[in-house]
Amino acid sequence: MRKPAPISGFSKLSKEAKIEWILQNHASEPESALNMLTGYWHSQTEVQRLHDEFIENTVSNFYLPFGVAPNFLIDGKIFTLPLAIEESSVVAAAAKAANFWLERGGFNTEIIGMTKIGHVHFIWQGKEFDFLQNAFVNHKQRLFDATEEITRNMRQRGGGILDISLIDKSDLEEDYFQLQVKFDTRDSMGANFINSCLESIAKEWAQIVGELRAEHPVQIVMSILSNYTPECRVKAEVSCKISDINEGSGIGNQEFAEKFVRAIRIAKAEPYRAVTHNKGIMNGIDAIIIATGNDFRATEASAHAYAAKDGSYSSLTHAEINGDEFKFWIDLPLSIGTVGGITSLHPMVKFAHELLGYPSASDLMRIVAVAGLAQNFSAVRSLITSGIQKGHMKMHLLNILNQLEATDEEKKEIVEYFKDKVVSFSAAVEIFSKVRGVSLGAISSAKH
Amino acid sequence: MRKPAPISGFSKLSKEAKIEWILQNHASEPESALNMLTGYWHSQTEVQRLHDEFIENTVSNFYLPFGVAPNFLIDGKIFTLPLAIEESSVVAAAAKAANFWLERGGFNTEIIGMTKIGHVHFIWQGKEFDFLQNAFVNHKQRLFDATEEITRNMRQRGGGILDISLIDKSDLEEDYFQLQVKFDTRDSMGANFINSCLESIAKEWAQIVGELRAEHPVQIVMSILSNYTPECRVKAEVSCKISDINEGSGIGNQEFAEKFVRAIRIAKAEPYRAVTHNKGIMNGIDAIIIATGNDFRATEASAHAYAAKDGSYSSLTHAEINGDEFKFWIDLPLSIGTVGGITSLHPMVKFAHELLGYPSASDLMRIVAVAGLAQNFSAVRSLITSGIQKGHMKMHLLNILNQLEATDEEKKEIVEYFKDKVVSFSAAVEIFSKVRGVSLGAISSAKH
Repeated sequence: MRKPAPISGFSKLSKEAKIEWILQNHASEPESALNMLTGYWHSQTEVQRLHDEFIENTVSNFYLPFGVAPNFLIDGKIFTLPLAIEESSVVAAAAKAANFWLERGGFNTEIIGMTKIGHVHFIWQGKEFDFLQNAFVNHKQRLFDATEEITRNMRQRGGGILDISLIDKSDLEEDYFQLQVKFDTRDSMGANFINSCLESIAKEWAQIVGELRAEHPVQIVMSILSNYTPECRVKAEVSCKISDINEGSGIGNQEFAEKFVRAIRIAKAEPYRAVTHNKGIMNGIDAIIIATGNDFRATEASAHAYAAKDGSYSSLTHAEINGDEFKFWIDLPLSIGTVGGITSLHPMVKFAHELLGYPSASDLMRIVAVAGLAQNFSAVRSLITSGIQKGHMKMHLLNILNQLEATDEEKKEIVEYFKDKVVSFSAAVEIFSKVRGVSLGAISSAKH
Repeated sequence: MRKPAPISGFSKLSKEAKIEWILQNHASEPESALNMLTGYWHSQTEVQRLHDEFIENTVSNFYLPFGVAPNFLIDGKIFTLPLAIEESSVVAAAAKAANFWLERGGFNTEIIGMTKIGHVHFIWQGKEFDFLQNAFVNHKQRLFDATEEITRNMRQRGGGILDISLIDKSDLEEDYFQLQVKFDTRDSMGANFINSCLESIAKEWAQIVGELRAEHPVQIVMSILSNYTPECRVKAEVSCKISDINEGSGIGNQEFAEKFVRAIRIAKAEPYRAVTHNKGIMNGIDAIIIATGNDFRATEASAHAYAAKDGSYSSLTHAEINGDEFKFWIDLPLSIGTVGGITSLHPMVKFAHELLGYPSASDLMRIVAVAGLAQNFSAVRSLITSGIQKGHMKMHLLNILNQLEATDEEKKEIVEYFKDKVVSFSAAVEIFSKVRGVSLGAISSAKH
């Protein structure tokens, strides 16, 4: 292994040459590392090449487990959710919530909006906003015309640019203005479409102002979509009679409902709790976002900014008791697509869409919101009854046993042992040492 | 294909039986879907089983491309970053920023803190906070003692519980209090460790108050870590003389620096821009978070809540010009680990850690922060010069051509054609129809 040094022209090397360089510079056992990396390649060359071409400098595939959660009753229809996630308890929690609500009327959803947004951020030092406003109003059509070609396909599908407005933002930054553009991108997430439109609009706008007042040209700072989409938003909800809750943990129905609603109130009021609460929601959301080929960084950024919209970071879910009824819902922005990007390229993504019955973008928004609500229901339910660790560590037990390199029989015996006990890492190590008949000290490879 | 109906006992089925049920209920061509799903399995049964056991109801693997970005000079040492991500421009942007700063002193980092935090949220209706405060002070040691066994390993490694404090939160919710517990979890992310400690502390605390005042028992609402970790935080920075910027886009050094700093000021002041700006940062951060076996939902939630901490959602990066110097930095919370979880189980994760020279948790925080800063540098640099679409669509071109099912020769010819032109979906379709010699209408499968 050489001491790592800079390399030039790396991206132009073949995949094999890249791997060779990496292993010579970074691997203590290059040959076994090579076998590991290539062992993760798809056996069909053309499938592997497809995956290689998604990004630059690809050397192998990173496996995320692809699991499913059946029995989701959403707006009267049954769905099986595709979930790609590495965290052990997420699929189990989803499936549990699905079964619970299956018997209580299922999930109901509502699309609040489908409008996406982007901005041309620019500087103009001419000072007279009236002039700018007039230039904009009089020549607005030219901005639409400049995107004629880019928007043709989208318009044929019923979408396109909804509106363009000029906004004075000079209170935030000297001489700073925006063209704010709203879009309907139909079933696509639309990032490339929006950015291409904005860049054309920016160019035309600079042209217009330049023609009218050459001494005060527009300086384009940047033209870019916003991942914050409060007008592209969905709501999902569950409700039932308090007397139907019977959730099985042993506490009464009324007490459960009240504890649940209080836990949500705390998540709304206390940011330290709200962050973890919403993180749990995103466990469910990101798992289906990834499986359906969408961009989870966009979803995350928009959801968390929305959680902070009122000045203090708060919960994305809400709960209330109305008389004898318990109601629990989520309301969040989601900008996703079912066409474009890698949705029609990645075979597992295509399968995920088939599993869901080829939903439209708005239908997928409904399903994704439900995945978040379901995840949160299971998490809060565990937290206020048995505690989170009981279920979580039971799920994680196989990981611990794999780490200890337990055999199949040892695993079976130890899983059986923990059937009615709380799993902890140290307890697992202890029982493992007994089952195998070695001293605790001998299990030196065990790190936590 | 049957109409989907609920199924009971799904999780207890074998993997094969689960797949059979899914395909019968959701696949139009069960046989080819089966071949697709099993085609993504690892060829070694024991490796596949390891991945299956990470979560519940696993049926296959979801491939994320695993790429690398070399030439990261961080605190005087050269690194090659492992990146698992589906977005086409992320690795290229990382590599570009690495090369740029390699020649300008590289990245410098600073750990601001390593303290993690969790809470026992409880209700106490006794009203006299003085009583509670005294009970806490007089019996605090019992709370430490209750975690004796759970913390033993962690204490041996130099970590453990740092402090426990009682906080009156009854202004947020009637009778609501917290035990706030701070932790040093060494090189582990520590979620399971923290939650196990908190659950033991909660039990003991209820016991203590029950002994002292049986008529006013403590009601535990929940015991849970916080994913918001402002005291577990890192800073990464680049700087150079403005005269050394020479960034190659044709605009002058001073103008580039000023435009850059203004773009950051806009991202700080305008939430619509800040969300997208930070989303780009997380492109780089999540890619290495996933590759190193960490939990990207935790990282996302904490980063975005931190971005909103001052009441308005803002940029995680900062830039300034000081005389003839340009400085650009990021400051964000990161709670991650290099032991525990799946870090020693997932072969690709193990490889990622080897690639980075087996960093400690704090070293990995430095590297991850750099990945975010680098990504943001490339994005802002493109935005304020050529626009984001030029590079992005060039990266995405191969995806478009794969979608059109272009042959190798066609791809080569079309990539060559776009060498000096801006790529758009419609332009790609158009040139493809020319190269192949078919009408535009014939390319009916092309969706965007």
